Amino acid sequence: MSSVTCQISISLDGFVAGPNQSPENPIGEGGMRLHEWAFATDTWRRQQGLDGGEHNADADVVDEATQGIGAYIMGRKMFGGGDGPWDETWRGWWGEDPPYHVPVFVLTHHSREPLAMEGGTTFTFVTDGIGSALEQARAAAGDGDVAVAGGASVVRQSLATGMLDELHLHIVPVILGAGERLLEDVGDPALEPVGVVASPAVTHVRYRVS
Amino acid sequence: MSSVTCQISISLDGFVAGPNQSPENPIGEGGMRLHEWAFATDTWRRQQGLDGGEHNADADVVDEATQGIGAYIMGRKMFGGGDGPWDETWRGWWGEDPPYHVPVFVLTHHSREPLAMEGGTTFTFVTDGIGSALEQARAAAGDGDVAVAGGASVVRQSLATGMLDELHLHIVPVILGAGERLLEDVGDPALEPVGVVASPAVTHVRYRVS
Repeated sequence: MSSVTCQISISLDGFVAGPNQSPENPIGEGGMRLHEWAFATDTWRRQQGLDGGEHNADADVVDEATQGIGAYIMGRKMFGGGDGPWDETWRGWWGEDPPYHVPVFVLTHHSREPLAMEGGTTFTFVTDGIGSALEQARAAAGDGDVAVAGGASVVRQSLATGMLDELHLHIVPVILGAGERLLEDVGDPALEPVGVVASPAVTHVRYRVS
Repeated sequence: MSSVTCQISISLDGFVAGPNQSPENPIGEGGMRLHEWAFATDTWRRQQGLDGGEHNADADVVDEATQGIGAYIMGRKMFGGGDGPWDETWRGWWGEDPPYHVPVFVLTHHSREPLAMEGGTTFTFVTDGIGSALEQARAAAGDGDVAVAGGASVVRQSLATGMLDELHLHIVPVILGAGERLLEDVGDPALEPVGVVASPAVTHVRYRVS
């Protein structure tokens, strides 16, 4: 069976978003510092349709992160624009051609018709919980893997329910001091580091969850 | 000038000791899980005068951690037996031949005569703060480095005051859920990963502090 994976950037003090998150700034104050390593790479820029950027070890990690993914599961805050019900004009943060290119299952309490975007991304809104989202995502992914895209709350749920096979942390050497923690209320899963990529900007560690 | 370094084991969720620390159990509930990777190595066992253990990447890390260290700075809780004043019979947790073998400067509010142990370890009690301890440790270390031995409170102070040149974290893939955090109230130091050693048990990352 295909795997359920998750990759996420985390500060050295354990935060995946800075303080004072809001619908307009879901990543919180200072939260962007967690993603600068990716923004600097040519692979991330190419995914956004941009030229330039560095090709380094981090770039390869960005590239690999999307390979083999057949479907995503996403929280309502990551899809954005508040907790919903979303105005039908809200089509996510990513423009008309989002960087997913496969089915995306968005957890929400408010039903809505599926939203087909350009480039193969479709957003399907799931109102009956993460287990149902996983089932639908597996079916849509076929032989591909299912990735939990975020935000933190969905990642915590995926860890706490034991559905995650692999957690890939990008450990960023910044100390945010406050914000949203990732590894809280997730129980005590058995984690085994199975791969590390080091760069001057970030330490990438893949953990197998068993 | 010689460096000021610190190496410490930390859980993936940021704790360096478990909950419910006490004078009898300064490492807290579950805290020992942070050190099992070291206990399993032949180098750690040899430092304690024991045979056996595994020789692996973690063993090399244990070995290197003590090389070039000319003096240590230690908090009062790590020296143990409560916050002091210590009964003059209290001679630390480590028996008559502690595994330091160089001068150790113990921060405390209670003055006490220096304590010379076997094997080159002397405990000197410093009552006028971490800056004074650093000055004395540098003088005692000569060309050697000064290591901040712990506990967490002293490491936090050394980070917050900017006296630390290098922080070596042993990131252990366990989630303690509660306990004493390391990276809290330490400001926003600039950290750069300068070396990573990976093993199935733990990810060792050296950060240069600038």
